[in-house]
Amino acid sequence: MDDATNIPSLSDIRAAAERIKLHAIRTPILTGRGRLDEIVGAQLFFKCENMQRVGAFKFRGAMNAVLSLSSEELRKGVATHSSGNHAAAVALAAQIAGTHATVVMPEGSSAVKIEAVGSYGADVRFCANTQQAREAALAQVVRDTGAHFIHPYDDWRVICGQGTAALELLADTPHLDMLLTPVGGGGLLSGSAIVTKALSPTTRIIAAEPSGADDAFLSLQSGRIVPSIDPKTIADGLRTSLGVRNFAVIQECVDGIVTVSEAAIVAAMRLLWSRLKMVVEPSAAVPLAALLEHKLDVQGLRVGIILSGGNIDLDALPWR
Amino acid sequence: MDDATNIPSLSDIRAAAERIKLHAIRTPILTGRGRLDEIVGAQLFFKCENMQRVGAFKFRGAMNAVLSLSSEELRKGVATHSSGNHAAAVALAAQIAGTHATVVMPEGSSAVKIEAVGSYGADVRFCANTQQAREAALAQVVRDTGAHFIHPYDDWRVICGQGTAALELLADTPHLDMLLTPVGGGGLLSGSAIVTKALSPTTRIIAAEPSGADDAFLSLQSGRIVPSIDPKTIADGLRTSLGVRNFAVIQECVDGIVTVSEAAIVAAMRLLWSRLKMVVEPSAAVPLAALLEHKLDVQGLRVGIILSGGNIDLDALPWR
Repeated sequence: MDDATNIPSLSDIRAAAERIKLHAIRTPILTGRGRLDEIVGAQLFFKCENMQRVGAFKFRGAMNAVLSLSSEELRKGVATHSSGNHAAAVALAAQIAGTHATVVMPEGSSAVKIEAVGSYGADVRFCANTQQAREAALAQVVRDTGAHFIHPYDDWRVICGQGTAALELLADTPHLDMLLTPVGGGGLLSGSAIVTKALSPTTRIIAAEPSGADDAFLSLQSGRIVPSIDPKTIADGLRTSLGVRNFAVIQECVDGIVTVSEAAIVAAMRLLWSRLKMVVEPSAAVPLAALLEHKLDVQGLRVGIILSGGNIDLDALPWR
Repeated sequence: MDDATNIPSLSDIRAAAERIKLHAIRTPILTGRGRLDEIVGAQLFFKCENMQRVGAFKFRGAMNAVLSLSSEELRKGVATHSSGNHAAAVALAAQIAGTHATVVMPEGSSAVKIEAVGSYGADVRFCANTQQAREAALAQVVRDTGAHFIHPYDDWRVICGQGTAALELLADTPHLDMLLTPVGGGGLLSGSAIVTKALSPTTRIIAAEPSGADDAFLSLQSGRIVPSIDPKTIADGLRTSLGVRNFAVIQECVDGIVTVSEAAIVAAMRLLWSRLKMVVEPSAAVPLAALLEHKLDVQGLRVGIILSGGNIDLDALPWR
């Protein structure tokens, strides 16, 4: 399954679901009943991955990847680089599997996310906030320890794990007309797209991203990966470039990518807090932001939205 | 059922559940899996009434009361006084039943709550922030319009409606050792207590209230209603005095009342936001605050907590 062009099947994602089921939470699905549905004119179903372990869908992919390792690989530990949720996810997954994690985090990562990684017993190593610095620091860790690298998204085991959220949503909520996810590196989107096209081919799978970090939109348009250079968005989970594997799936399975303004992200986030009573991080509010900005025609449709995470610094809310 | 000493039975609460079931949300129950359970040393089950319509359990009681009215009474409309969630609850219940609501609110009520009441089409009349001023303004409305008064808590129909949250929690979560609610006027507590003693007599039913508004604690101790005079607490839903009917139930059915500090309320609220990803108002955090302050021995127990509401002004969070 390592060939970057050899896209996994639904059965690979079902196998991931089986592998992680003792550890991942089958997160609740909330409806937008009341004024949220009225505001957007559609029937909304929110898959609450902000309530997943570590507060984000990332736990699914990390847990699947760690549980796919041999005992020899596990013995040497795991390593990754991530500004946030993947870092916490790998740290907890390693703790559950009884191995050790080293996590390279860029300086300036949010305090709440650094604290979480440390609390799961991982070693944190800081680096400059560039892709190059992250990769160099990670390579050093792998050289030093022999740890197995778990990429945040460009890894079929991670992609299959992330797909299990959509698997649950489609199983619990039949007849969705559309499924929306945010897109950063493309792990959640590609996993969700494989599941959707296999299980419910009439459901359109569409991603939303900040217009200040619209590399996935440009990549899908141009047919090649456009790197994310100097992204400007509050949605800290969506600043990365697409992975090769993720882009292969996106080109084959995804029906569209739309972009949203920063103001709409904050408005959507606030609406999810005030109406749904859910704490979500900016990245998780991006799909709803697309509906608030009328970027998609959803009148009368049944629309699933994966709320990707809920980790935010409560002392630094964006509407203050 | 109007006699203040004639406590309703479980079948009255089942009838309320039947009456409101097309309108009230069967709210989700979240577990404290992960560090929340670890922190308190118990297995927690949160009944999420912050996700109820109008964002609070109060909708249950108001809807049951409105749907218990005759068509003649409905024609004249309904009225109430409330600083917040009961006001919105009566407004929405009236809108659903096709009648009119007039709501007396004290000046200084939170902006988000005033806005909610107006958005459900009710007339809002402001009064000075004293119990006397509220009652005088309400009496004037009733004289002017012939509207039917729906008391926020000292009303068996309201109490039976509020009891339906515990009915759902106990049905969905067997073998609870303890059920915790906040207590203000006593509507939620008395309804929950009737259900608990009838359905699950071995479950202890205990309330928590702020030590700056400890009138219910003092009332239970002294055997008579001690009025709440000049209460000092962030928990704006818990500043009222107990009702006569509520106290009759509390004396007969409730196993204890504990008090908590303001600091513990804010800490519990923040913990529910950061760990459970749930937006709750200060009143709703009071039971968890009691566990954080070790006011109850819950080691190893299965503990149900009713999260009473989630209406808070996001621009004025108490940890800023």
